[in-house]
Amino acid sequence: MRDVAIVGVSQTKFGELWEKSFRDLVVEAGIDAIRDANMNGEDIDAMYIGNMTGGLFVGQEHIGSLIAEHSGLTPIPATRVEAACASGGLALRQAIMAVASGYYDRVMAAGVEKMTDVVDATPAIAAAADREWEAQQGVTFPSLYAMMAKRHMYEYGTTREQIAGFAVLGHKNGALNPKAQFQREISVDAVLNSTKVASPLNILDCSPVSDGAAAIIVCPADEAHKYTDTPIYIRASTQASATISLHNRKSLTTIPSTIFAAKKAYDMANLTPKDMDMAEVHDCFSINGLIAIEDLGFFEKGKGGQAIEDGLIERDGDIAVNPSGGLKARGHPLGATGIAQAAEITWQLRQEAGKRQVSDATSGITLNIGGTGGTAAIHILSVDRK
Amino acid sequence: MRDVAIVGVSQTKFGELWEKSFRDLVVEAGIDAIRDANMNGEDIDAMYIGNMTGGLFVGQEHIGSLIAEHSGLTPIPATRVEAACASGGLALRQAIMAVASGYYDRVMAAGVEKMTDVVDATPAIAAAADREWEAQQGVTFPSLYAMMAKRHMYEYGTTREQIAGFAVLGHKNGALNPKAQFQREISVDAVLNSTKVASPLNILDCSPVSDGAAAIIVCPADEAHKYTDTPIYIRASTQASATISLHNRKSLTTIPSTIFAAKKAYDMANLTPKDMDMAEVHDCFSINGLIAIEDLGFFEKGKGGQAIEDGLIERDGDIAVNPSGGLKARGHPLGATGIAQAAEITWQLRQEAGKRQVSDATSGITLNIGGTGGTAAIHILSVDRK
Repeated sequence: MRDVAIVGVSQTKFGELWEKSFRDLVVEAGIDAIRDANMNGEDIDAMYIGNMTGGLFVGQEHIGSLIAEHSGLTPIPATRVEAACASGGLALRQAIMAVASGYYDRVMAAGVEKMTDVVDATPAIAAAADREWEAQQGVTFPSLYAMMAKRHMYEYGTTREQIAGFAVLGHKNGALNPKAQFQREISVDAVLNSTKVASPLNILDCSPVSDGAAAIIVCPADEAHKYTDTPIYIRASTQASATISLHNRKSLTTIPSTIFAAKKAYDMANLTPKDMDMAEVHDCFSINGLIAIEDLGFFEKGKGGQAIEDGLIERDGDIAVNPSGGLKARGHPLGATGIAQAAEITWQLRQEAGKRQVSDATSGITLNIGGTGGTAAIHILSVDRK
Repeated sequence: MRDVAIVGVSQTKFGELWEKSFRDLVVEAGIDAIRDANMNGEDIDAMYIGNMTGGLFVGQEHIGSLIAEHSGLTPIPATRVEAACASGGLALRQAIMAVASGYYDRVMAAGVEKMTDVVDATPAIAAAADREWEAQQGVTFPSLYAMMAKRHMYEYGTTREQIAGFAVLGHKNGALNPKAQFQREISVDAVLNSTKVASPLNILDCSPVSDGAAAIIVCPADEAHKYTDTPIYIRASTQASATISLHNRKSLTTIPSTIFAAKKAYDMANLTPKDMDMAEVHDCFSINGLIAIEDLGFFEKGKGGQAIEDGLIERDGDIAVNPSGGLKARGHPLGATGIAQAAEITWQLRQEAGKRQVSDATSGITLNIGGTGGTAAIHILSVDRK
């Protein structure tokens, strides 16, 4: 198996981008990533696209071919990968495997979603849940995560304020990220007093509906210095599934796919949670950020809320969580999120993260979740500091 | 790169399967493939699912997780791959790369589509074309392939009867396949006198709307004899893209992604078109079967019609094309087709194809096409005959 490195990354601005189409967004991200890798289009051997539901959002499937045409990259193989909101993370995994296998050398992994072309995004998003046993009964994602939040509060005494604190953190970091959808701070009070969505979650606990794309270029680690002075090494790429339906899980306060994929990832990288300087985790709802920092092993189960309250996951805390602003503030164009997470870790490890730079970081982890955890994808990245 | 072999295959009956749901179909195929490989569920390390448009057909995305749950295979990684009607072929490719890379050892590639839960399948299928420049202008796949047929007749003198002959061949073979949707023969006259769809194509030139699933299990070639006496070896797995839109191609009578992927495949396998004993090609419309046997190099461009008329692609001809009945007669549940093609070649090479057995075959090729050729996936398989 060949080792793999990231040599180029990009992200479009995330937000309500009325002036940009689905295809515009991903082409923009792809070109920027190719430039960032000091490559030309003809250097790319294959591409993978993470996209959740182009069919339901923009009436478009066959997305690989669409993007190959509009980026001028035909006839290279172009493959779309889907696992709900973890589509981007899985596209990155396939790109890594394509290089590791020796099938291809320079591979792009991109992610894209155009969510604002429909009047109501909810039915399309609900396709990530079990259609027959969840979605058709009227259960939506805010209500599923609300149940997880209620149970976490009941089992561990987690407070409403602690949960809100994860959203506050995201906005604090997002305020420093010029590509974030929301670049302003919010307070715990603002979260608690915002419109109720599904008790106990309010609108400011929820990541937004977003348009956007991101892209990453990987190549064999031993060729990475041809393209960049600062290759970012893939130390682990893992993935696990869990039941798509929340009611078939043993617990509502942990995501078993994260636990499984995280153990594999730390083993693969020969690292521990304590070795992680930063993390980009999947806070589609504030409670999911809280659960993530426990499931990834940064804090004991049930102690995540206190860790948030104590400032341990701030940029200058024990571990910098979501320095980008996370899904809450950077935005959450579903298929793009997993790619954007790894792009953020790359910028941070290269020390190119501007005002939101985490100091002295040499390794970071991403956690990209599909649905309520039916899919989890984890990447551990590191840099060799001279 | 590790060599890879097929050790288990399966296919559900294809057809209008009102009594079976999306999830029923793929679980049935998966279990049968695991049994065929003499494995248990816990032997499977990862799975890939080819599915075109669960979102538009059954309101379901996040298909990997759904299937992992309903097949009892959590927490293994489960990844859905999409490239319109080539989704199955690409799922097989990802499974092969997952083994070749060393990431996983025993990997399932499945394909599934449930097309009969909607009143009109046409809008969902049209999502495989360019939504903005083709589908929204009212162009559907029968009309796109009709243009290709008209042009082929104009450029090469191909006759309407020769094109119809490809559908006749499919039904002749399908009549011998107990898993085919249509198990009866048809005549050239029947095709010519059937309901017009898009001139010159009639309804009997078109593959049907189908429900169905198929599955394949791959493992490292050097471990294959643990599971089967007759491993089928992956000699080549290639893929290419072309413009998703037909109007942006230089020619309407050839599919450039096939040409590109076929050249790569023959090079990878160190074989030529003449070495192929059989082929499963993508006859979503009869004209596409005709174009395929030219683009794959079996016959010179423009001579495919004559080859059909002369019986050269019958089971006892120069090369046995679509011994399964092809998309026309076996049926075409979009995401399952690419998997079913490789399953058919596997049964043939194992000499387990019953009444439709091609004699003395040692190698075969599959061509799985997405859209009008925006994606092409090719596999060359072979057996070591003792």
